[in-house]
Amino acid sequence: MGQILDTIRHTNDIRKIPEDQYGALAEEIRQFLVEKVSVTGGHLAGNLGTVELTMALHISLDLTKDKIVWDVGHQSYTHKLLTGRREGFDTLRQYGGMSGFPKRAESPADAFDTGHSSTSISAALGLAAARDLRGTDEKIVAVIGDGAMTGGLAYEALNNAAKRSTNFIIVLNDNEMSISENVGGFSKYLSDIRTSEGYTQLRDRIRYSLNDTMPKVAKGISRAKSSLKQLVIPGMFFEDMGITYLGPVDGHNMQDLLRAISDAKRINKAVLIHVRTKKGKGYLPAERHPARFHGTGPFEVETGLPKSPSRKASYTDVFSTVMIKLARKDERVTAITAAMADGVGLKRFRNIYPERFYDVGIAEQHAVTFAAGLAAGGMRPVVAVYSTFLQRAYDQIAVDVCLQQLPVTFAIDRAGIVGADGETHQGIFDLSYLSCIPGMTVMAPKNKWELSDMLKYAVGSGRPAAVRYPRGEACDRFEEFRAPIEEGRAEVLYEEKDVLLLAVGSMVAVGEDVRGRLREAGYGCSLVNARFVCPFDRELIDRMAATHTLLVTMEENVQSGGFGEHVQAYCDEAHRDLQVLNISIPDRFVHHGSPSQLMKELRIDAESVTERILQALRNERQ
Amino acid sequence: MGQILDTIRHTNDIRKIPEDQYGALAEEIRQFLVEKVSVTGGHLAGNLGTVELTMALHISLDLTKDKIVWDVGHQSYTHKLLTGRREGFDTLRQYGGMSGFPKRAESPADAFDTGHSSTSISAALGLAAARDLRGTDEKIVAVIGDGAMTGGLAYEALNNAAKRSTNFIIVLNDNEMSISENVGGFSKYLSDIRTSEGYTQLRDRIRYSLNDTMPKVAKGISRAKSSLKQLVIPGMFFEDMGITYLGPVDGHNMQDLLRAISDAKRINKAVLIHVRTKKGKGYLPAERHPARFHGTGPFEVETGLPKSPSRKASYTDVFSTVMIKLARKDERVTAITAAMADGVGLKRFRNIYPERFYDVGIAEQHAVTFAAGLAAGGMRPVVAVYSTFLQRAYDQIAVDVCLQQLPVTFAIDRAGIVGADGETHQGIFDLSYLSCIPGMTVMAPKNKWELSDMLKYAVGSGRPAAVRYPRGEACDRFEEFRAPIEEGRAEVLYEEKDVLLLAVGSMVAVGEDVRGRLREAGYGCSLVNARFVCPFDRELIDRMAATHTLLVTMEENVQSGGFGEHVQAYCDEAHRDLQVLNISIPDRFVHHGSPSQLMKELRIDAESVTERILQALRNERQ
Repeated sequence: MGQILDTIRHTNDIRKIPEDQYGALAEEIRQFLVEKVSVTGGHLAGNLGTVELTMALHISLDLTKDKIVWDVGHQSYTHKLLTGRREGFDTLRQYGGMSGFPKRAESPADAFDTGHSSTSISAALGLAAARDLRGTDEKIVAVIGDGAMTGGLAYEALNNAAKRSTNFIIVLNDNEMSISENVGGFSKYLSDIRTSEGYTQLRDRIRYSLNDTMPKVAKGISRAKSSLKQLVIPGMFFEDMGITYLGPVDGHNMQDLLRAISDAKRINKAVLIHVRTKKGKGYLPAERHPARFHGTGPFEVETGLPKSPSRKASYTDVFSTVMIKLARKDERVTAITAAMADGVGLKRFRNIYPERFYDVGIAEQHAVTFAAGLAAGGMRPVVAVYSTFLQRAYDQIAVDVCLQQLPVTFAIDRAGIVGADGETHQGIFDLSYLSCIPGMTVMAPKNKWELSDMLKYAVGSGRPAAVRYPRGEACDRFEEFRAPIEEGRAEVLYEEKDVLLLAVGSMVAVGEDVRGRLREAGYGCSLVNARFVCPFDRELIDRMAATHTLLVTMEENVQSGGFGEHVQAYCDEAHRDLQVLNISIPDRFVHHGSPSQLMKELRIDAESVTERILQALRNERQ
Repeated sequence: MGQILDTIRHTNDIRKIPEDQYGALAEEIRQFLVEKVSVTGGHLAGNLGTVELTMALHISLDLTKDKIVWDVGHQSYTHKLLTGRREGFDTLRQYGGMSGFPKRAESPADAFDTGHSSTSISAALGLAAARDLRGTDEKIVAVIGDGAMTGGLAYEALNNAAKRSTNFIIVLNDNEMSISENVGGFSKYLSDIRTSEGYTQLRDRIRYSLNDTMPKVAKGISRAKSSLKQLVIPGMFFEDMGITYLGPVDGHNMQDLLRAISDAKRINKAVLIHVRTKKGKGYLPAERHPARFHGTGPFEVETGLPKSPSRKASYTDVFSTVMIKLARKDERVTAITAAMADGVGLKRFRNIYPERFYDVGIAEQHAVTFAAGLAAGGMRPVVAVYSTFLQRAYDQIAVDVCLQQLPVTFAIDRAGIVGADGETHQGIFDLSYLSCIPGMTVMAPKNKWELSDMLKYAVGSGRPAAVRYPRGEACDRFEEFRAPIEEGRAEVLYEEKDVLLLAVGSMVAVGEDVRGRLREAGYGCSLVNARFVCPFDRELIDRMAATHTLLVTMEENVQSGGFGEHVQAYCDEAHRDLQVLNISIPDRFVHHGSPSQLMKELRIDAESVTERILQALRNERQ
């Protein structure tokens, strides 16, 4: 597929392509990406938007030594394609296959691993500082989207970039979206630049006029140092920060891109190239629905429609519905998302209660402190966020919410194994990092009804509380078990003797399977839904310790600092006769793959857990 | 002291003071602050700089309903004084006494608790949003320093403030410093404004000239929407963000301040008042040495010299010296601070190796990701930071450093109980939040020589590593114990039988006292310096389990997720015969007071620990 693309086998091969074939190559790349991603799923719209930009960077730079840091990194597909990883696209994001993000371990052309937003300028500044200390001269480029520019980290980096006296290139890939539409003052500012097409011409016209016809005013202006620049340069925001601004540049025009990069390479300080791109460019369904094609499952190329049949309600869907109900009953309920209204399920809430909905941009820190302010002002805010991104707001959770015991609810989606996005996106630390913060209640539901009950409980509690739930289909088993939520109380599903399974959230369903297998093997087995990770139900353990010989904790979280360790530590003090088996994720980062494959690998699937329990029972008996 | 001040007993009393007495009142307040802080110690220079600003806010607002959020909060002394807390200054920052930060629990005039930087605009936006939902009309004001503006959270908030259509006031208290001098592009930008005194006049002059004498250009300009504004308004950075800019205003001129606040109150959107103040204003020693008087111990009012005699070397001093040595030996060693060169002990490094020193501003997130970039570029960066502030960079530690196993060393100062700054500043969570991140080595030294050895080990390890050490005097006991550092190996100081004390860092010294008491009571007692919290020495426990009946873990960290829990969990699996006693900080926030008072209250001082051990031994025997 693609005659020109066929000739690009290694890094820098693209530099041999004649100029008049750039257009055709871009088309071949787009066709390749659409076909491959339609099979494996992956990030599409952003990659379609950055084909020419990536080509221009690869043509202008020497990627055997120059370095590009891709912000977030899910727009690096063309970069992967141009650096000898064409075959990887057959296994994109699949277990054992190529990652959907840049990985230093995958290619020397990947300068820095990314996955979370707004890190690229900081990391690239580090690479540039190291370059200058080493005295080498490779170019360092950060490519960052306008969405990622709403994150405070990017601003911290810009503030530091201003000090540079050697070349440092920031490419602002402005597609007017993060995953959904952008928000905030900075976004409006970029939009003002975009709509002022006349700026460049105006600059020359005015400079000319001032000198010629109005010397007195021109002199007055030049006295006020930078006012002339303020008059004529659209990127004054960046110039104010001390960063040279080039643009805006049409991100689908190779000549313009190549010229801008060439100009930027000659500047011995930090320079920002403002590139306008169209998300989904060249594939009509993605151009029309860029948010849906931001990350997509397999789809039909002709229609753009998903291949997989519509599935059962996800936990996100349940959250979405519950939020409407909560808001209807209690006018203090407000909802906050960090640029993920769609992902976390707040679109309906936004439509029905726009005045109580806040999309703060990719700004998790602000989301949490803003929620704390809302709560201090008498509201009952719910911050809906993916587990892995909540790590961004750790200090704010502790100092701004929990220290003041403000009634903020954290709805933590994508907790546990998330699958294809891999290491940077697994939500496997939240039970550890949240449970050491004093005054934080941490819950996990066993099924969709319990998610609803827990959210109501959390919002009603008047204190900081977190409910964490997994990606994907909501469990609809255990409908018969729906005892009211009580602070710190677990829920007994089945009570027998011998083995006590104490499972957190999603692991209750695994526990039921394990229980079936253990009973077949002749053991009695109780199954308890932990419900509360923090504070956990010590009384239940006290009561059931006498009738069980083995307590098995089960959770989708790393071992260190997780639920199991808390229970083990307690049992070590209070029930030393009771053997405890900790089923959790080993203390390592977890790569990409399907959740079922990964759970098997991590030995937390029903079959592995059963084996481990039987092994423990055998050991105990000896 | 102070006739006018005597009449101010309650919130809003200041509004009855006649205008002609404002100057005298400001003087009385300064005298009061200097006298009080000279006795108790506290934050002085910042408070002296904001006397008129605070007065003006209190006169212009109705603090029984209007709300001020003080960024960081250590500049809230005058606010406390004007809201009925005069007597509190006798016990300022002392155990059981008045906090040095705003506390909602202390006064209804304190709208939001602060302590960490850059949160005020976010929190105040939350209060404003809640106000608008409730339909009330109180004014909401955030007071933020220019130093705090280097933190990304402040920018995230500004970006969101732009959307407001109701009154929201940000006061930018610009004293050209954070704790030390400011850095970065934003700081330069403010400085450009400050030095362009002619701006305001120029604006009127040019607007007039353009319309009168050059209609064609004026028309061209007005076509390009906001260019005229860019020409004439100094605060274009904020205007670009969609925030109305007022200023700069002389922060020691009551008339100017009152007029600006009055103007700001009438604007139905976000408005920023740029106020220039002088840190230390009115007290010569503080004006001359604002950094030293940022936070100070007791001092002589006449001379400004510290009352307490010079003390032994602190851990910070040791770190300072070791960094020079490390840098001399290895040119890859670089040092990074987030606006705390003085506090963390990097001033000498900066002087000797300026090209390898980076002060990134109050920007912990950037500090860590920048370090990751430096490390990816072949350097060996050391990020020196207070434990509590490292919480700001949690996601970056995990995703940008540990995931890629980049050789970044974290020198974590002020770990454990820090004392007078209280809840927001205690460094009692780091062992928990760091040890659940895969691939992070976490160490704590028993004394000053070991801090040196551990830093060398960390930098030489080529992997992510953290060394955490307490505030204040470095322990200079145990000089005779200096076995080489080996990965994951504890150090046995004394080996006997019965009780095994396994202590982390600062608790080794406490352990030695405890050991003396236990031996007096007739028990054998081994003392082991844990050295590594992560990975901890399982082999040592395996070996010593046979000869001891009680293992006592000791740490200055909360219980949940800390060293003790990890050891307990391990022993619950591997050594169920061995009783484990977990000596750690109970899972709650710890208020201010002296470290010794607090350790006693928390029952982790030598006397309490001994009691708890004897109690455990008695229980075990029954």
